[in-house]
Amino acid sequence: MGSMRVAVLPGDGIGPEITREAVNLLEEIVRLFQRNIEIQYGQIGGAAIDEEGIPLPNATLQLCRTSDAVLLGAVGGPKWDEQPGHLRPEAGLLALRKELGLYANLRPITVFAGLEGASPLRGELLQDVDMVIVRELTGGLYFGTPKERRQSGQEWEAVDTLHYTEAEIERILRLGFEMARQRRRHLTSVDKANVLETSRLWRETAERLALEYPDVTLNHLLVDNAAMQLIKCPSRFDVIVTENMFGDILSDEAAMITGSIGMLPSASLSETGPGLYEPIHGSAPDIAGQNKANPLAMFLSVAMMLRQTAGWAREADAIQSAIESVLAEGWRTDDLGEPGTARLTTSEMGAKVREAL
Amino acid sequence: MGSMRVAVLPGDGIGPEITREAVNLLEEIVRLFQRNIEIQYGQIGGAAIDEEGIPLPNATLQLCRTSDAVLLGAVGGPKWDEQPGHLRPEAGLLALRKELGLYANLRPITVFAGLEGASPLRGELLQDVDMVIVRELTGGLYFGTPKERRQSGQEWEAVDTLHYTEAEIERILRLGFEMARQRRRHLTSVDKANVLETSRLWRETAERLALEYPDVTLNHLLVDNAAMQLIKCPSRFDVIVTENMFGDILSDEAAMITGSIGMLPSASLSETGPGLYEPIHGSAPDIAGQNKANPLAMFLSVAMMLRQTAGWAREADAIQSAIESVLAEGWRTDDLGEPGTARLTTSEMGAKVREAL
Ligand SMILES: CC(C)[C@H](C(=O)O)[C@@H](O)C(=O)O
Ligand SMILES: CC(C)[C@H](C(=O)O)[C@@H](O)C(=O)O
Repeated sequence: MGSMRVAVLPGDGIGPEITREAVNLLEEIVRLFQRNIEIQYGQIGGAAIDEEGIPLPNATLQLCRTSDAVLLGAVGGPKWDEQPGHLRPEAGLLALRKELGLYANLRPITVFAGLEGASPLRGELLQDVDMVIVRELTGGLYFGTPKERRQSGQEWEAVDTLHYTEAEIERILRLGFEMARQRRRHLTSVDKANVLETSRLWRETAERLALEYPDVTLNHLLVDNAAMQLIKCPSRFDVIVTENMFGDILSDEAAMITGSIGMLPSASLSETGPGLYEPIHGSAPDIAGQNKANPLAMFLSVAMMLRQTAGWAREADAIQSAIESVLAEGWRTDDLGEPGTARLTTSEMGAKVREAL
Repeated sequence: MGSMRVAVLPGDGIGPEITREAVNLLEEIVRLFQRNIEIQYGQIGGAAIDEEGIPLPNATLQLCRTSDAVLLGAVGGPKWDEQPGHLRPEAGLLALRKELGLYANLRPITVFAGLEGASPLRGELLQDVDMVIVRELTGGLYFGTPKERRQSGQEWEAVDTLHYTEAEIERILRLGFEMARQRRRHLTSVDKANVLETSRLWRETAERLALEYPDVTLNHLLVDNAAMQLIKCPSRFDVIVTENMFGDILSDEAAMITGSIGMLPSASLSETGPGLYEPIHGSAPDIAGQNKANPLAMFLSVAMMLRQTAGWAREADAIQSAIESVLAEGWRTDDLGEPGTARLTTSEMGAKVREAL
């Protein structure tokens, strides 16, 4: 890709702060590598609700559709917690995922050198932790209907629907197999086949596809067991593929295990359209506006975007090395702080990484 | 309770081995404390499928209904994995939960003195870990309908239904508040209110009930965040209350954190009928029949049964102290083994605990 159009959606909480630094970083990339990157801003989440009354304004959606990639800060916050479901910040993100067909959420889970001390796990368990979680993102309980509250006789009840077509399952599993093929050739498919019909269809589909990927070792884990194995022996995993809600829970669990939750990026991909890149951490309303947030997960999301959407490996590598060298020098943001390291603000950390580029 | 009728369901895998030791333990209790305990055996799970073709024979259900308590080993195994859903071992357990109205699954999560080394977490995080997970057990995705595979046009699809009535939600939340009141007065309600309608009804119901329990501090956690906080700071939790599937995942995660997964019992309670007591670990087919399984979670399930159903606190305390002293002497089963401890078989561990009574 010669030049690139990026839709930038700062969102809520610490979103705007870390996005500002990400844009500064992109501008430095433009300058150093003579690249052409066109940035346009859009509103989403609580910010969009406040300004336009809905969490995903049409203008934002159009902007995203006509961009090569979307870079998102974070959405959500207590301010909008009392809103009905479709007028909550998260509904904007969910609608964007659905509208852009972002069916695959990729979350690489790694431990950064020097940050092992931030992990709640014993040090020896962190060795060789290097996995990718492939989460289905446009199906399952998030989008199935009926999804409603209703009165039945005298009483209220509520329902959500966990629905998958075989094609949806096959599409995400195939991506899991493909990714495993590019890595250590080990795919763990997580389901709850002893209880759920959707999981049984999932498991059968995985078995069928496995015949096409004889070079990949497939194994199945029940979700409750997966939640245990992630803690017991995180290094055993290479690629994990699972449905939307299980992926939501397990990927956050896996991120926490590394101690690098403020460091982990994610990519959400569609079949043909723009991908969306965002840090896996949330909007952290408790520290919003204080210039304390860690921008590194956002920077790594930028790197993922440059690598995957634009195919600019050199630029992506440069960002990653810059981050590693800043960490190696002992610079930390608040969330990473250990004794003997220097604490930086969001903007100071941004500047350090740009310098190191 | 003067005397007690117990339905004993050994089940599959290591179920029969640990159940045998549990019955030996019960007989020792009878002898030492002059108690009257009547034991009758029933079949469930894969064992019942093999003998009678279905995972919950009517005779077993009748036996349970007419008993004061049910003691269950474990169900499931690869042998029955290819069966259709309703003919799998787990279907027997699910049907038993539903038929007996066992709406509340209580899982106390503690770290045993001397076993901290088995935890994947750093030692300092284990201090003061002492929580109970209250899991809703007869609603949600496990039982909601439609729950089926169907053809839509050319294509297969599958659906499961996450359904809750307000009364079901209120009943389990109330138990959570009551338990918190008997403990450290802190209740964490886990949901996914930013995505699920059922969770929004759940959260509102929790808020409404909180007015009746001003002495209990209620807070809400999203399930993905809960999966993180359990690892980051397990000691912050007192009572956690959540719906069926989230409870399945989080309680296994919490159990693994302690390193004491072979040590944790559970109770499933109904409004008026018999309770069911079982270890939280599974049927462990890989070590079945080898006399290697750890029977201690089963023994602690017996203690819970004696305390909660029969009201025999002295007997329950005696079992717990016996287990603690055996561990303090350095005796371990394989799963707990560390250097410098002596490994016992299932039956040897059973004998040691009986001696220590
Ligand atoms: C904000 C929320 C709707 C979202 C999700 O549950 O998918 C978030 O937790 C995530 O993982 O991206
Ligand atoms: C065996 C299985 C159906 C069961 C469940 O998912 O409830 C088990 O994992 C449990 O937690 O008791």
